[in-house]
Amino acid sequence: MRPSGRQPDQLRPVRFTRHFTRHAEGSVLVEFGDTRVLCNATVESRVPPFLKGKGRGWVTAEYGMLPRATHDRMAREAARGKLGGRTMEIQRLIGRALRAVVDLEALGERQVIIDCDVLQADGGTRTAAISGAYVALRDAVAHCLKTGVLKRNPVHGQLAAISVGIYQGVPVLDLDYDEDSQAETDMNLVMNEAGGVIEIQGTAEGHAFRRDELDAMLELGEQGIREIIAWQQEALAA
Amino acid sequence: MRPSGRQPDQLRPVRFTRHFTRHAEGSVLVEFGDTRVLCNATVESRVPPFLKGKGRGWVTAEYGMLPRATHDRMAREAARGKLGGRTMEIQRLIGRALRAVVDLEALGERQVIIDCDVLQADGGTRTAAISGAYVALRDAVAHCLKTGVLKRNPVHGQLAAISVGIYQGVPVLDLDYDEDSQAETDMNLVMNEAGGVIEIQGTAEGHAFRRDELDAMLELGEQGIREIIAWQQEALAA
Amino acid sequence: MRPSGRQPDQLRPVRFTRHFTRHAEGSVLVEFGDTRVLCNATVESRVPPFLKGKGRGWVTAEYGMLPRATHDRMAREAARGKLGGRTMEIQRLIGRALRAVVDLEALGERQVIIDCDVLQADGGTRTAAISGAYVALRDAVAHCLKTGVLKRNPVHGQLAAISVGIYQGVPVLDLDYDEDSQAETDMNLVMNEAGGVIEIQGTAEGHAFRRDELDAMLELGEQGIREIIAWQQEALAA
Amino acid sequence: MRPSGRQPDQLRPVRFTRHFTRHAEGSVLVEFGDTRVLCNATVESRVPPFLKGKGRGWVTAEYGMLPRATHDRMAREAARGKLGGRTMEIQRLIGRALRAVVDLEALGERQVIIDCDVLQADGGTRTAAISGAYVALRDAVAHCLKTGVLKRNPVHGQLAAISVGIYQGVPVLDLDYDEDSQAETDMNLVMNEAGGVIEIQGTAEGHAFRRDELDAMLELGEQGIREIIAWQQEALAA
Amino acid sequence: MRPSGRQPDQLRPVRFTRHFTRHAEGSVLVEFGDTRVLCNATVESRVPPFLKGKGRGWVTAEYGMLPRATHDRMAREAARGKLGGRTMEIQRLIGRALRAVVDLEALGERQVIIDCDVLQADGGTRTAAISGAYVALRDAVAHCLKTGVLKRNPVHGQLAAISVGIYQGVPVLDLDYDEDSQAETDMNLVMNEAGGVIEIQGTAEGHAFRRDELDAMLELGEQGIREIIAWQQEALAA
Amino acid sequence: MRPSGRQPDQLRPVRFTRHFTRHAEGSVLVEFGDTRVLCNATVESRVPPFLKGKGRGWVTAEYGMLPRATHDRMAREAARGKLGGRTMEIQRLIGRALRAVVDLEALGERQVIIDCDVLQADGGTRTAAISGAYVALRDAVAHCLKTGVLKRNPVHGQLAAISVGIYQGVPVLDLDYDEDSQAETDMNLVMNEAGGVIEIQGTAEGHAFRRDELDAMLELGEQGIREIIAWQQEALAA
Repeated sequence: MRPSGRQPDQLRPVRFTRHFTRHAEGSVLVEFGDTRVLCNATVESRVPPFLKGKGRGWVTAEYGMLPRATHDRMAREAARGKLGGRTMEIQRLIGRALRAVVDLEALGERQVIIDCDVLQADGGTRTAAISGAYVALRDAVAHCLKTGVLKRNPVHGQLAAISVGIYQGVPVLDLDYDEDSQAETDMNLVMNEAGGVIEIQGTAEGHAFRRDELDAMLELGEQGIREIIAWQQEALAA
Repeated sequence: MRPSGRQPDQLRPVRFTRHFTRHAEGSVLVEFGDTRVLCNATVESRVPPFLKGKGRGWVTAEYGMLPRATHDRMAREAARGKLGGRTMEIQRLIGRALRAVVDLEALGERQVIIDCDVLQADGGTRTAAISGAYVALRDAVAHCLKTGVLKRNPVHGQLAAISVGIYQGVPVLDLDYDEDSQAETDMNLVMNEAGGVIEIQGTAEGHAFRRDELDAMLELGEQGIREIIAWQQEALAA
Repeated sequence: MRPSGRQPDQLRPVRFTRHFTRHAEGSVLVEFGDTRVLCNATVESRVPPFLKGKGRGWVTAEYGMLPRATHDRMAREAARGKLGGRTMEIQRLIGRALRAVVDLEALGERQVIIDCDVLQADGGTRTAAISGAYVALRDAVAHCLKTGVLKRNPVHGQLAAISVGIYQGVPVLDLDYDEDSQAETDMNLVMNEAGGVIEIQGTAEGHAFRRDELDAMLELGEQGIREIIAWQQEALAA
Repeated sequence: MRPSGRQPDQLRPVRFTRHFTRHAEGSVLVEFGDTRVLCNATVESRVPPFLKGKGRGWVTAEYGMLPRATHDRMAREAARGKLGGRTMEIQRLIGRALRAVVDLEALGERQVIIDCDVLQADGGTRTAAISGAYVALRDAVAHCLKTGVLKRNPVHGQLAAISVGIYQGVPVLDLDYDEDSQAETDMNLVMNEAGGVIEIQGTAEGHAFRRDELDAMLELGEQGIREIIAWQQEALAA
Repeated sequence: MRPSGRQPDQLRPVRFTRHFTRHAEGSVLVEFGDTRVLCNATVESRVPPFLKGKGRGWVTAEYGMLPRATHDRMAREAARGKLGGRTMEIQRLIGRALRAVVDLEALGERQVIIDCDVLQADGGTRTAAISGAYVALRDAVAHCLKTGVLKRNPVHGQLAAISVGIYQGVPVLDLDYDEDSQAETDMNLVMNEAGGVIEIQGTAEGHAFRRDELDAMLELGEQGIREIIAWQQEALAA
Repeated sequence: MRPSGRQPDQLRPVRFTRHFTRHAEGSVLVEFGDTRVLCNATVESRVPPFLKGKGRGWVTAEYGMLPRATHDRMAREAARGKLGGRTMEIQRLIGRALRAVVDLEALGERQVIIDCDVLQADGGTRTAAISGAYVALRDAVAHCLKTGVLKRNPVHGQLAAISVGIYQGVPVLDLDYDEDSQAETDMNLVMNEAGGVIEIQGTAEGHAFRRDELDAMLELGEQGIREIIAWQQEALAA
C-alpha cells in the first residue's frame, strides 16, 4: 500500500491556476497534491549571446526553491552565492524539454524564460514544473499573438511530465516525498501528446532495474501524462 | 489625487493569511493591495558563530524577490552569484526590527529565521514583509511553546511597518509602485504598539524635506501602523 | 557624563585636509576626532550601463575599511570575495546623499566616484565620509571647471552629515565608538545648508524612542550639521 | 553510413591503460577511439560532513575538461570561478552510478573520489569516464585491501556505460562527436554485468522518439556494455 | 648525495612529445623525469580588451594541476571557485616569459593561449611548463604560417627554464620534489639561447644566500638551459 | 638622466612614521618619495588551519591599493569579488620575506598579519611595503614582549627591500613610476642586514639582461638596502 492510500496508477490531484500573479506574460500555479510550483513566463526581445543575429529565439528555464518549501530549511542559493548541481540539472531539463515543442525560428529573436519557483515541495517538483511551465508558455505566447509581437504560434506540440518509480517492489505513478525518499528506482518522463518520449531519466537507487520493470514504468508514465495533458487542456480552455 | 484613488491617509487593503505553506513553523502570506509577500519563520536549534555558547538566541531575516514579481523581470540573485545591496539592506532592516521586540535570552540558543519572499511587488515590499514577519514569528513561537521547545514567550511587544511619503506635494500613506517611483520623499517607519519608533528611514528623492513635512509623515505613519497592528491582532486571534 | 568628557551638544574636533593624495581630482582626509576617512573623488568620462546615451551623469560612492582601522582586525572584503551588507548599505547612502545636491544633467555623461576609505575608526565613519566626500566632490568639480571638462557647476547645494543618539538617557551629538556601542538609539542625519533633511536613518537599539526624543535628536543634529558646514566652507576657502 | 565507417552496432576501439600516473591509488587512462579520459581514484580517510560519525563511506566523482580537449578552446572553469551545469550534471551522474556497485558500509568512514579529466574529447566523454572510473575504483580498492586499509571488498558488482542514439533514422552505438552533434536522439546507459539498468538518460534532440526506437537503443546499449565489461575484465586481469 | 643519485649538475631525462592531442594548434607533452606537463597552444583571432584596435597581439598562459597530479589530492580550483595565488603567479610567469621572445606586432590582432596542465608532478612543474610551452608555441606558429594566418614568424628567439637550488649545502640543478621540499634555496631561471636572463626568481627558504652561492646557481642554470634548448631543437627538427 | 633628476644610485627620500594609526600593535606609514604605504601589524592568538596544534606560529601579509592610489582609478578588488594575480603575488612575497627573519617556534601558536595598504603609488610599492612591514612587525613584537604575550623576541634578523632596474641602458636604484613603466629590466631585491639575499625577482621587460647587468643591479641594490636598513634603525630607535 502507498503511504497516501493511492492506487499504484493514481495521480495526486492536479491543478493549474492561471494568472496567479499579474506581471508575467504567463503565470501559472501548478499543484500536484501538496507540491506547489509557481511558473512565470517572461518574453524578452533579446536572445543569449550565442544566438545574436541568427534570426532564431530561445526558450530557457530557471528553477528555485523557497528556503522553507521543504521540511527542513535549505540555505538560499543566492546567499551561498551559487546554484547547486541539482538546481542546474533541473533547469537544464525544463528548458530542453520545452524547446522540443517550440519552433525557435518562428519565435524570432526573442527569449522566453520560464521561472519555476517551488513554494511547497512534496516530491515531483521538476515534473510538476515542466507540466506547469508548458501552460505558462502557452499563455505567454497567446499574449504575444494578441499584442502582435508574434505573427504565428511557435508552439507546435504539447507536453507534460511525471515521475514513476518502484516502491516496495511495485511500479507506482507520481511519487510523493514519502515514497520518493524510499523508492528503489526513480524515473522522470517527459512525453508529448502523441506519446513520443522527449526525455527519460531513470536512476536505480537500490538494485539495478530489469527491462520488464522499465516497461511497466513506461506504461504507467504514459497513462499519467495523458491525464495531465487533459488537465492542461481543460485549464487552457477555461 | 492619488493614482489609486485613495485618500492621502488611506491604506491599501491589508490581509494576513496564516498557515500559507505547511512545513514552516510560521507561514504567513501578507498582502498590502497587490504587494504579496510570503513570510516563513523557521526555528533552528543553533545560533550564528558569534553567539555560540552565550546562552542567547538570534532573530534574523532573509529577503528575496521572485524574478517576475516585478513589472520587468529581474535577474535571479542566485544566478548572479551574489545578493544585491538593496536585498542586504532590507534583510538587515527586517531582522533588526524584529529583534527589538524579542527577548533573546528567553529564546535560548535558538535562531529564528524569517524568509520573506516577494511573490508580487507593487511598492512597500519591505514594510509589508516586516508586518507579515511579525505574525509569522508569533506563530512560530506559539508552535514552540506548544511543543515545549520554549518555556516562556520571548516576544515582548508588537510591531508593524508602513511607508509614507510626499507625492505631488502631499504627504500620503502606504505608497504603491506608481506613487513610489515618483515620490519626492519616501520614508519607512517601524513602530511598536505604543507608538514608539523602532526604525525610521527617510530619503529625499527630490528636494530636501522640511521639519513640518517630516512631522506630517510621522503622524500619517503612526496612524497607519495602528491600523495594521489591529489587522495583525485580528489575524492572530482567528 | 560622556566618556570623552564632551558636552551633549559638542562635536569632536573636525578637520578637512584637502589634496591629501596627489592623483585624485579631489582628495580629502576628513577627521572627526579619531575617526579618519580618506575621500578621493574621481571623474570618469563614462556612465553606468543604465545611463548610456541619456545625456546625464552619475555620482556614486564606494566605502571600505582598512582591516585594522578597527580595534580588532576585520577580514578584508577583497579576500572574502564579497562586500558585506554594512558596506553596501553605507556606500548606497553616501552616493544617494551626494546626488541630492548635484544636477546630473549638468554633469553630462560623466561619472563621479567618491572612494571613502576609513584609515582609523572611532564611530561615525559614514557621516564623516559623507561630510568629507562633499568637499572632495567640490574639489573634483572645480578641477573639471578649470580644465574645461565641465562648463558649469553641477553642484547646486551643500550638505553634511552627523550622528546623534541617546546615550544613558541623554540625547547627544556625534557619538564616538564608546558611546555608539552602548547607545540606546542611534540616528544618522544628512542635511543641506538650509536645514532641509536629505536622509534620516534612526534605529532603536534598546527601547523604542518617543517623538520628543526624536525631536531632541533632530535639533542636536541640525546644529551639528551647521557647524560642520562652516568647517567645510573654511576648508574650501583655504 | 556512419561518418567513421563503423557498423551501427560497432564500438570504437576501447582501451584501458592502468597505472597511467603514479600518485593515485587507482589511475586509468580510458580511450574510446579519440576520446581520452584520465580517471584517478583517491581514497581519503574522511567523509563529507553529512556522513560524519555514521560508520559509512562515500564514493563521489569530479569531472573536468582540459581547455583544449575540444575542437575550439573552452574557458577554464577554474578561471570563470564556477562549475558549469553540464559539468555538475556529469559528475553527479558518475558518482551516483559508481555508488550503485559499492557497499558503503563495507567502505567504513572513507571517501573515494574519482577525478575524471578529459584530455581529448570526441563524443561520449561521460560514458567513457564511468567505464574508466570503474577500473580505477577497482585498483584503488585492491590497493587498500593489500595495505590492510580495507578488510573486505566493498565493490559488489561491475558496471560500464555507453551512449546510443538515432543518427539519420538508424539506431547506432557509441556515437562520436560528428554523430553526436547531429543525432536526433541521444541516450546514455549505465548497466551492470547482469544487464540491469543503473541509469538511463535519453533526450530527443529532434523529434520525440517512439517505444520501438527506445527498445532498439536499449538492445544496442546492452550489447555494447557487455563488450566494454569484457575489456574491463581483460584489463583488470593483466 | 642527491636522493635520485644524480650529479649536482645533472638534469633528469627531458622529453618533448609533440602532437600529444589532436585539436590544439600546438600540443606538447613535456617530461622532466616524473614531472609531466601537457602544453596546448591555441591561436585565437581576438585579443584581450586592453589591446582591442591596437594592431598588436598577445601571448598568455593558463596553468592547472589535475587534482591527483600530486602525492596527496589537492582540491580542484574550479570546485573552490577561484584560482590560488600559486597558480596565478605561475601563469603570469609563463606568459611573461614567452612574450619576451615574441614580436607582438608581427602576431597581429591575435592571441596565443598556452594551457599548461600538470598531469603528474615531481618538482619543477613551472620550469618544465615554460620549456614545453615554447615548443607548443613554435608548433602553433608553424601551423599559422602554413595555413596563411600569419605571414611572418613572430617568434624571434628561443628560451627554456630550469630550477636550481642549494640542497644540503650544495648547489644542484633541476630539483625534484624530494629535494625541492628540503632545499635551503630555490631559484627558477628563464634564459634565452644566447644566455641572456629573461626571468630570475630566487627565494631563501632557509638562510639567506650569499653572492657566491647565487653565482654558482646561475652557472648551473645556464648550463642546464643550454641542454634543454638542445632537446627542444631536436624535438622541433623531428 | 633620470626623470626625477636623481643619481643612478640615489634613493628617493625614505621615511618611516611609526604609530600612524592607534589600534594596530604596529602601525607604520612608509614613504619612498611619493609612494606611501600604511603597514599595520596585528597579532592574533590563533594560527591558520594547517598549523593548528603544532606549537608554531605564522607571519603573513595582505596587500591592497586604495582605488585612487594610482593615476587612473583601479576597480576595488572587494567590488570585483576577487584578488588579482598581482595582489596575490605581492602578498605572498611580503609574507615569505618576513618569515625569513622570524623564529616561528618562538612565536608560539600566534599569527602576525601585516596589512600593507597603498595610499599613494609612485612605483616600488611592494619593496616599500616590505621595508615598512618589517618596522611594523618589530613594533608589534615589542608590544607583545611588553605585555608579556611573548617571552622572547622571535625576530632574529633585519631586512629591507628595494627595486633596481635598467633604465635607458643604465642600472638605476629605486625606480619611480615614470622609470618603472619604461624600464628594460626590473628587479626586486630583499636582503638582510648581512647582505644575504632573501629574495630576488628580476624580469626582462625589453631585452634579456646579461650577467654583468645583473651584477651591477645587485651591487646597487645591496647598497640601497644598507641605507634603508639604517633608516629603519633610526626610526626604531626614536
